[in-house]
Amino acid sequence: MLKPLGDRIIIELVESEEKTASGIVLPDSAKEKPQEGKVVAVGTGRVTDNGERIALDVKEGDSIIFSKYAGTEVKYGGVEYLILRESDVLAIIG
Amino acid sequence: MLKPLGDRIIIELVESEEKTASGIVLPDSAKEKPQEGKVVAVGTGRVTDNGERIALDVKEGDSIIFSKYAGTEVKYGGVEYLILRESDVLAIIG
Amino acid sequence: MLKPLGDRIIIELVESEEKTASGIVLPDSAKEKPQEGKVVAVGTGRVTDNGERIALDVKEGDSIIFSKYAGTEVKYGGVEYLILRESDVLAIIG
Amino acid sequence: MLKPLGDRIIIELVESEEKTASGIVLPDSAKEKPQEGKVVAVGTGRVTDNGERIALDVKEGDSIIFSKYAGTEVKYGGVEYLILRESDVLAIIG
Amino acid sequence: MLKPLGDRIIIELVESEEKTASGIVLPDSAKEKPQEGKVVAVGTGRVTDNGERIALDVKEGDSIIFSKYAGTEVKYGGVEYLILRESDVLAIIG
Amino acid sequence: MLKPLGDRIIIELVESEEKTASGIVLPDSAKEKPQEGKVVAVGTGRVTDNGERIALDVKEGDSIIFSKYAGTEVKYGGVEYLILRESDVLAIIG
Amino acid sequence: MLKPLGDRIIIELVESEEKTASGIVLPDSAKEKPQEGKVVAVGTGRVTDNGERIALDVKEGDSIIFSKYAGTEVKYGGVEYLILRESDVLAIIG
Repeated sequence: MLKPLGDRIIIELVESEEKTASGIVLPDSAKEKPQEGKVVAVGTGRVTDNGERIALDVKEGDSIIFSKYAGTEVKYGGVEYLILRESDVLAIIG
Repeated sequence: MLKPLGDRIIIELVESEEKTASGIVLPDSAKEKPQEGKVVAVGTGRVTDNGERIALDVKEGDSIIFSKYAGTEVKYGGVEYLILRESDVLAIIG
Repeated sequence: MLKPLGDRIIIELVESEEKTASGIVLPDSAKEKPQEGKVVAVGTGRVTDNGERIALDVKEGDSIIFSKYAGTEVKYGGVEYLILRESDVLAIIG
Repeated sequence: MLKPLGDRIIIELVESEEKTASGIVLPDSAKEKPQEGKVVAVGTGRVTDNGERIALDVKEGDSIIFSKYAGTEVKYGGVEYLILRESDVLAIIG
Repeated sequence: MLKPLGDRIIIELVESEEKTASGIVLPDSAKEKPQEGKVVAVGTGRVTDNGERIALDVKEGDSIIFSKYAGTEVKYGGVEYLILRESDVLAIIG
Repeated sequence: MLKPLGDRIIIELVESEEKTASGIVLPDSAKEKPQEGKVVAVGTGRVTDNGERIALDVKEGDSIIFSKYAGTEVKYGGVEYLILRESDVLAIIG
Repeated sequence: MLKPLGDRIIIELVESEEKTASGIVLPDSAKEKPQEGKVVAVGTGRVTDNGERIALDVKEGDSIIFSKYAGTEVKYGGVEYLILRESDVLAIIG
């Protein structure tokens, strides 16, 4: 399994259709497009200058919308993942 | 429903007419133009380096003016939303 | 009424004549030109990383000089306002 | 009178001659040229993230050298002033 | 032996095949490609402004994925190493 | 006399010969060249966000090497000075 | 002798051969190349905003690898030195 570091999370991509299963319709414009994913692993959080570790707001299993072009693609065990920073997550679908 | 993260908010756009319902008239100049929206969800606030969470000043239901070109458009349940950071909010119409 | 957020203020513009009512004469040079305004609303101040809210030095009713090109124009109830950050205020005319 | 905000100061310009009254000779080179001024008003100081206000080192009446091209020109009561940040002050002539 | 400073780590490169021993398949796209390595030495951590030293999350022996183009190549004792900052580590393979 | 502000120092230039009195030979390369000077005045130090004043490490009378192109030239009483920030000082010759 | 300021160190260059005495072989690629040096003097450390001085991890006598193109060259007493910041040191050879 992959364990992300710090404030990073790993998501599985939800295929970007005209209208997704959860009802998000991605606009077809020149703007930065959001995308949908499912969180499969979260880091233990960043450590501040005070030595405190700030836990993430995103949990394993969350469905999220994130900024397109964010993160790094990885394939592991035949599945394609994306490693993001939590700050690239726009909203949780809940 | 969409739950924004950190210091992000989700707004419904108020159609930008010559003169809006609440009386804001948007100037027709080359300057950065403000726009009007209604807040439908707010994040739980950013976490500082001290581990403190700073609650937002903007509440659900507020009518706000925000900087044009700010944020990311999302459609959910057939409604168009905009996800902004609170720092993109210029003023509350109250 | 418009309520500015954080360290923002809202001012009414004082018409920029050769010599204004309060005696400020704006120079006619290529430099960044100051302008005069009257404060009609102030935010509750920015919140620091310690969770402290820093109140503004500028008060409602103050006449101020601010950096030209700063801020965002808004019309509300037929009056033209400018939304600035307090850091764009150069001096109070007192 | 003009009251500068935060870490700003207001100075009267001392005419830049070949050799000034206090003995400063401004070099005639391509480098950033210092200039001489007399402080007529100082702000109450910037407020840090701890909520502390840091008083200025420069006092009313000080003769100072400052970085050319710094600040904003203002005329008030027929006198030309310059509004600077204290960080633009290079040295006090004492 | 090489001892990295602060938040730096030293890794041995794991040859980038179509599919690596641990099952990571590196995508063949124009995006920033991750790479796999084995950690052979870690620094004692960065020192914050409070004088606290923040220990690293990565340990000697960890298999990691890191951002391509990160770090500096060094050969020592005939082996090729890469010196990275911990922030260049995307995930631990565990 | 000139009194520098904050973390600034004032130095007299030591003529840059092929080999200076103290034995520094300045390299003739395309790199940023160091230069030698004698400290004639130091500021009281910068004030941190905690309100603490950090005294300078450089003292009046020190011979120093500093980064070329740093600082601002001033002539005072017929002598040419250079006003630098302490961070532009590379080393003390002792 | 030269005494570096703050977080600076002074090193003597170790001639960059195909394979150095300590066994470092510098790669012949287009990447940023590390180089080897011997530390002859270290500063007393940077002072943080809390007024704390953070001592260096590098000691006099250490052999180090540093980023090429970092630092400023100085000749003193006929020997060529390089003045670096500690952050330019990649690893200690120990």
